[in-house]
Amino acid sequence: MTVVRRPIGVFDSGVGGLTVVRALRARLPGEDVVYLGDTARVPYGSKSPRTVERYSLACQAFLLARGVKLVLIACNTASANALPALREASPVPVVGAVDPGAASALAATRDGHIAVIGTLGTVRSGAYERALAGRPGVKVTALACPLFVPLAEEGWTDGSDEVARAVARRYLTELFERDRDIDTIVLGCTHYPLLRDVISATARELAGRDVAIVDSATAMAEAAAEALGTGPNGRKHPGQLACYATDISRLDEIAPRFLGEPITSFELVDL
Amino acid sequence: MTVVRRPIGVFDSGVGGLTVVRALRARLPGEDVVYLGDTARVPYGSKSPRTVERYSLACQAFLLARGVKLVLIACNTASANALPALREASPVPVVGAVDPGAASALAATRDGHIAVIGTLGTVRSGAYERALAGRPGVKVTALACPLFVPLAEEGWTDGSDEVARAVARRYLTELFERDRDIDTIVLGCTHYPLLRDVISATARELAGRDVAIVDSATAMAEAAAEALGTGPNGRKHPGQLACYATDISRLDEIAPRFLGEPITSFELVDL
Repeated sequence: MTVVRRPIGVFDSGVGGLTVVRALRARLPGEDVVYLGDTARVPYGSKSPRTVERYSLACQAFLLARGVKLVLIACNTASANALPALREASPVPVVGAVDPGAASALAATRDGHIAVIGTLGTVRSGAYERALAGRPGVKVTALACPLFVPLAEEGWTDGSDEVARAVARRYLTELFERDRDIDTIVLGCTHYPLLRDVISATARELAGRDVAIVDSATAMAEAAAEALGTGPNGRKHPGQLACYATDISRLDEIAPRFLGEPITSFELVDL
Repeated sequence: MTVVRRPIGVFDSGVGGLTVVRALRARLPGEDVVYLGDTARVPYGSKSPRTVERYSLACQAFLLARGVKLVLIACNTASANALPALREASPVPVVGAVDPGAASALAATRDGHIAVIGTLGTVRSGAYERALAGRPGVKVTALACPLFVPLAEEGWTDGSDEVARAVARRYLTELFERDRDIDTIVLGCTHYPLLRDVISATARELAGRDVAIVDSATAMAEAAAEALGTGPNGRKHPGQLACYATDISRLDEIAPRFLGEPITSFELVDL
């Protein structure tokens, strides 16, 4: 009997989703992964729900054509705006970023004061508010932080970087003005984990106490394992990673920062 | 005899090109203008020449189908990477941003030390260096400044804004480290004129003297007038402005900042 190994598909608007691939490979090391970054049309975060949905469906169709057994939407903006359409169009399970991120926040919060930072598209969608609605005692404050993405791509992420600190102070000041009791911040964008240190330090400074910082990558990997109904599998060899992108500019430079391992190569595709 | 009024076509990766429309309407107030912002695929500045060329050709085809008599490429990245392909594909004259910008810099420089700041795509193309090559005594230093675009879109453009100053200081320090005698800076991206004050003040601070700041919008309007062979025309009524975009997110909020007048509406188009 021939067992066909089907890969897990992951897509993102760009390279940020490689932070999810990293968590996925740690949780399910034997699985093959196909990654697609829509780098020709990145970012999704500033665009309308209609455009985000259209692009996301094209990304998912590309992955489905490669026989994936599960689709992970690494991009928060796509998860927040296109999940229903993606699920309707997919014969295999589709896991988004919002529900796992919301679950992580609930596990981390002490007093229920949760902040979500992300792109304009994620914040405008109200997806995190919906995911956390009906939880007694939970208050959600959401804020778009557009400068965090280019900061992460410039590599100005050090906790003592003057620009990074000035940008973080500007956004987090507005956040704490809206709710001074925030105790947990969800990094609702795949780029933001690279800025975790400066966000955490600035939040502590402004709040006068520790603030939990959670991202959805680990929770997404867990959700993927659940959806597949598998624990860690017994394969001795690490699964293969195939990376595709719709544009190749700067991938070699930027992608390894997100993946945390060298990337052999991206294959260029037109969608 | 019926005289058909044909419009001037202007395209850009997004809304920044409205700074060029503004200059064009000041120079040729009677002309009709059709503007297309490819806001669904913005930015071009971080993408490869191949992708920029493909998108630019689609934008130009849209304008040509509307019967324009001249195409202005407001986007520096598209001008720097796609001008030959666009000219080859157009039956009407095509004016880019680079040559007018270079001419403005030559007119402004005292000692020939010219800096060009723009997107990664513009800087990597070497287009400004080529436009200024062979000018005796001219030295060109080019630097990509990716954070200036989201800064302008956030509206953090005030000369005393802490974040804007920190970002400008970071980039301009690198520029003056490469050539401490820079006396002229070309704003080689349609977003940057909104940051003119903070760029100018920071350059003066770092150089210890005034530094000329030039942009290509006015020079492009002049080049358009030359290409049409017209001086100011005698029409009493201002020309019409029709604006199209491939995505509508945030246009109402951002576009007027660039155009300097209210915009009645954008029409959404698929390319």
